[in-house]
Amino acid sequence: MMAVFERVTRLKSASRFLQFSTTLWPVPSQSPERCSPQRSVGCLQQRLVHGGGSGAVKAAPTRRPFSRVTTGDLKFFRQLLSDRAITDPDLLESSNVDWLKSVKGNSELLLRPKTTEEVSQILRYCNERNLAVSPQGGNTGLVGGSVPVFDEIILSTSLMNQVLSFDSISGILTCQAGCVLENLAQYLEECDYIMPLDLGAKGSCHIGGNVSTNAGGLRLLRYGSLRGTVLGLEVVLADGRILNCLATLRKDNTGYDLKQLFIGSEGTLGVITAVSILCPRKPASVNVAFLGCASFQDLLATFQTCRGLLGEILSAFEFLDASCMSLLEKHLKLSNPIRESPFYVVIETAGSNAAHDEEKLHRFLDKVMTSALVSDGTVATEESKIKALWSMRERVTEALTHDGYTYKYDISLPVEKIYDLVTDMRHLLGNRAKNVVGYGHVGDGNLHLNIISLSKDPALLAAIEPYVYEWTSRYQGSISAEHGLGLKKRNYIYYSKSPEAVSLMGNIKAMLDPKGILNPYKTLPDNIH
Amino acid sequence: MMAVFERVTRLKSASRFLQFSTTLWPVPSQSPERCSPQRSVGCLQQRLVHGGGSGAVKAAPTRRPFSRVTTGDLKFFRQLLSDRAITDPDLLESSNVDWLKSVKGNSELLLRPKTTEEVSQILRYCNERNLAVSPQGGNTGLVGGSVPVFDEIILSTSLMNQVLSFDSISGILTCQAGCVLENLAQYLEECDYIMPLDLGAKGSCHIGGNVSTNAGGLRLLRYGSLRGTVLGLEVVLADGRILNCLATLRKDNTGYDLKQLFIGSEGTLGVITAVSILCPRKPASVNVAFLGCASFQDLLATFQTCRGLLGEILSAFEFLDASCMSLLEKHLKLSNPIRESPFYVVIETAGSNAAHDEEKLHRFLDKVMTSALVSDGTVATEESKIKALWSMRERVTEALTHDGYTYKYDISLPVEKIYDLVTDMRHLLGNRAKNVVGYGHVGDGNLHLNIISLSKDPALLAAIEPYVYEWTSRYQGSISAEHGLGLKKRNYIYYSKSPEAVSLMGNIKAMLDPKGILNPYKTLPDNIH
Repeated sequence: MMAVFERVTRLKSASRFLQFSTTLWPVPSQSPERCSPQRSVGCLQQRLVHGGGSGAVKAAPTRRPFSRVTTGDLKFFRQLLSDRAITDPDLLESSNVDWLKSVKGNSELLLRPKTTEEVSQILRYCNERNLAVSPQGGNTGLVGGSVPVFDEIILSTSLMNQVLSFDSISGILTCQAGCVLENLAQYLEECDYIMPLDLGAKGSCHIGGNVSTNAGGLRLLRYGSLRGTVLGLEVVLADGRILNCLATLRKDNTGYDLKQLFIGSEGTLGVITAVSILCPRKPASVNVAFLGCASFQDLLATFQTCRGLLGEILSAFEFLDASCMSLLEKHLKLSNPIRESPFYVVIETAGSNAAHDEEKLHRFLDKVMTSALVSDGTVATEESKIKALWSMRERVTEALTHDGYTYKYDISLPVEKIYDLVTDMRHLLGNRAKNVVGYGHVGDGNLHLNIISLSKDPALLAAIEPYVYEWTSRYQGSISAEHGLGLKKRNYIYYSKSPEAVSLMGNIKAMLDPKGILNPYKTLPDNIH
Repeated sequence: MMAVFERVTRLKSASRFLQFSTTLWPVPSQSPERCSPQRSVGCLQQRLVHGGGSGAVKAAPTRRPFSRVTTGDLKFFRQLLSDRAITDPDLLESSNVDWLKSVKGNSELLLRPKTTEEVSQILRYCNERNLAVSPQGGNTGLVGGSVPVFDEIILSTSLMNQVLSFDSISGILTCQAGCVLENLAQYLEECDYIMPLDLGAKGSCHIGGNVSTNAGGLRLLRYGSLRGTVLGLEVVLADGRILNCLATLRKDNTGYDLKQLFIGSEGTLGVITAVSILCPRKPASVNVAFLGCASFQDLLATFQTCRGLLGEILSAFEFLDASCMSLLEKHLKLSNPIRESPFYVVIETAGSNAAHDEEKLHRFLDKVMTSALVSDGTVATEESKIKALWSMRERVTEALTHDGYTYKYDISLPVEKIYDLVTDMRHLLGNRAKNVVGYGHVGDGNLHLNIISLSKDPALLAAIEPYVYEWTSRYQGSISAEHGLGLKKRNYIYYSKSPEAVSLMGNIKAMLDPKGILNPYKTLPDNIH
């Protein structure tokens, strides 16, 4: 979710993508193209054999026998939505393509409902007619989950952008799913609150998409995952039924917590139409430190020291390596604020007492500088400098897009292991890759591994995959920490989940969406059907 | 979950209940006995009509046509578990009764597996034979969820009490489901960590039961709910399949988050056999303040001031009213540490820097004392005094058990409304009730309303219910904030959940446990089948 839209903040995706509408993208160009059935670890081997085994993992899905949109269908949608049922190919172009330009669908119909009732009517109709639907928020996903694969109808939440209520005593916000994250953050700022999540794509991503993908981001270390902060959801099911679980209570143990089914299921089980979420108070004091470390070992020791001395005021501990810094300097003309180092760390504190926070921070800095864990550093307390330091971390994804064709991996591992994968990958690929870089969320054990080549390179991809997944599986890691599986990673699920678990996921899908019309070809592996 | 076992800490439930094994309890004695179909709110009326309406809500369930345990069955279980398959009525007595002595089952078989594999074999067999099973942890629940209703086989996790691993870098603990919460807390203390949840029943309750009931408790305000802190679960499904979702990762977005289905579903969807959970560092400094407020309005203003000035170090904000204090003094001989007040507050801070924490606390106390929000108070920093202050809050439940027959309600409401319900109830019941008391978790908007009579009183109950549920529903509250629904509240689910939601819960139950053998008559309403 580290998409970067600093320069396109507030632009609607509809116009954002028109600029590159002439290029043609293979479908799905960045998807893994093969997965060897050979495994080095017994446990995994068993998983894959049980899960479908050799031949089960293919990248390009086959169109399922959904109906095709007829003039009769168009008539229905125009009656319901008037000019918000869009068929103009130019207007559709940007919604058919993901922001990485890596996946392109061929939808001929974009629907932009404003109300839950409209979403309900759309889905009821589509379900009856067996028309497939691709729900879309800000279209900032990185795994091809937010665009159609074939001719699925695009159901956009972009006009569902109203704040429904905010309780300034409890800090509970209720809003429609299409609210842009940054707009919500600005709205809350005036009430002295913040959103419990923050991510690079904030200028475009929708809260409904954040919840549907269980977005992580920069504040998870402090405020926890959306599974804890989301208090309620309103969801439209595949058959048009409206499921109102839009509670605004911190605690509610009356029956099964249904909303959890829709958090992180990438629109495959229902369309989220409204969200209620618990927001933290705006901290009185924020500090950001940008530090250099000579080794990843030193970086980890810095992290441990940090947790001890900053304790409850630590709100982010992020890292990038020297290769990322080079790309920031080269492509975005950002200048390194400190001396060159193999590793850089962004630490944020957020607290209620500026003097206390500064004292804690200085004690921490004193300790890591005198013990030589940190070689150089700078600290910012005023907003513009804080933003500048944060951009060294937030804009890495953007810098990467300028460097060539990028193979992206979003891996969870025990924190002491996360950089070993980058080193291993560099060693394995040698100069077959233009660049192998690592950055991510140290505090969450979440590595963003990016491998860059001059252009699309199937031989390079074959060297990366399934090696990277096997490596991750060996250490009981997750092959998608926060990006989700979408189209691109769906068939790799068995590297992180058991066949029993995947089979149960299939049962849940069949229960909630028996015709499979919701976001087909996403999240679940092909061999489950 | 505010059960109180200070004096029975570390005793196994098996021996704890033998002392009162001669009494006979009606089944289910504290259950709501009727629910009027008349509603004052249109929305609710619709809910109930859709949900089954008048006549749908009955307290005593009818035994479903499960098989009865035969000598052949006993032979199988003895072969599998040897002397851990218990049929001695004396030994079974304590497992047949909940700790409130309000619900009593007639199980003739108690199974005490040690391994997941044994649980799997038990459930596979029971599912094939159509034998109902009542999973049981520490048996400290307050809604009759942890004991059999008829002759269900009791499946106890009490011998599954091993810590499987603890990673002192990440703070991730993995253990079997039968570990007693307090034992885990002691284990972690030596590693400089704490459990993210704490509750009065800690000396008896099992972590598996905590997760199955999504226990809240005293630290939720600070560390969030188990939905965020539980990272992985191992669960045995009704048919004996083992579902291994025992990840130890902070982030994992590969497919649907299946473990959420089992958190809070009270053993009706599967038996949790192991848990991995993210534990916070042990705070370097802990302070507890015990304060008196002249009105609930002042108490709320104190809470708002507290959130601003204590910010990130606030770890609990609890309250009790003057009636609770009287009961503590009368039945437990505890003495009020401050001047008499209509309301009392327990505030806990937990932070990394003692000097900073004290300064924050003093600044806060200064403010609330000078503004007269607080009339009197005392602060503790050393452990024994902290414990003493906490017991004023933790032992209220115990004091209540000495005062008469207690009707217990566990309500979530917007925080500014929570005490209005107590006042209203007092007004409504007049001297028909011996006592109406309120206490609970202000920080979570969670009221524990307790109404005491000299003995069981159907007329009093008829005055309380459905009034209390209607009142709660009118303010979109939850009729069970943290206790769950169990046997006692199952039929009141429609006051907090829509018919669509309950119907979907039924589908999930049918998918995972088609024969309904797991904890029957619990959580879901009778009219769902």
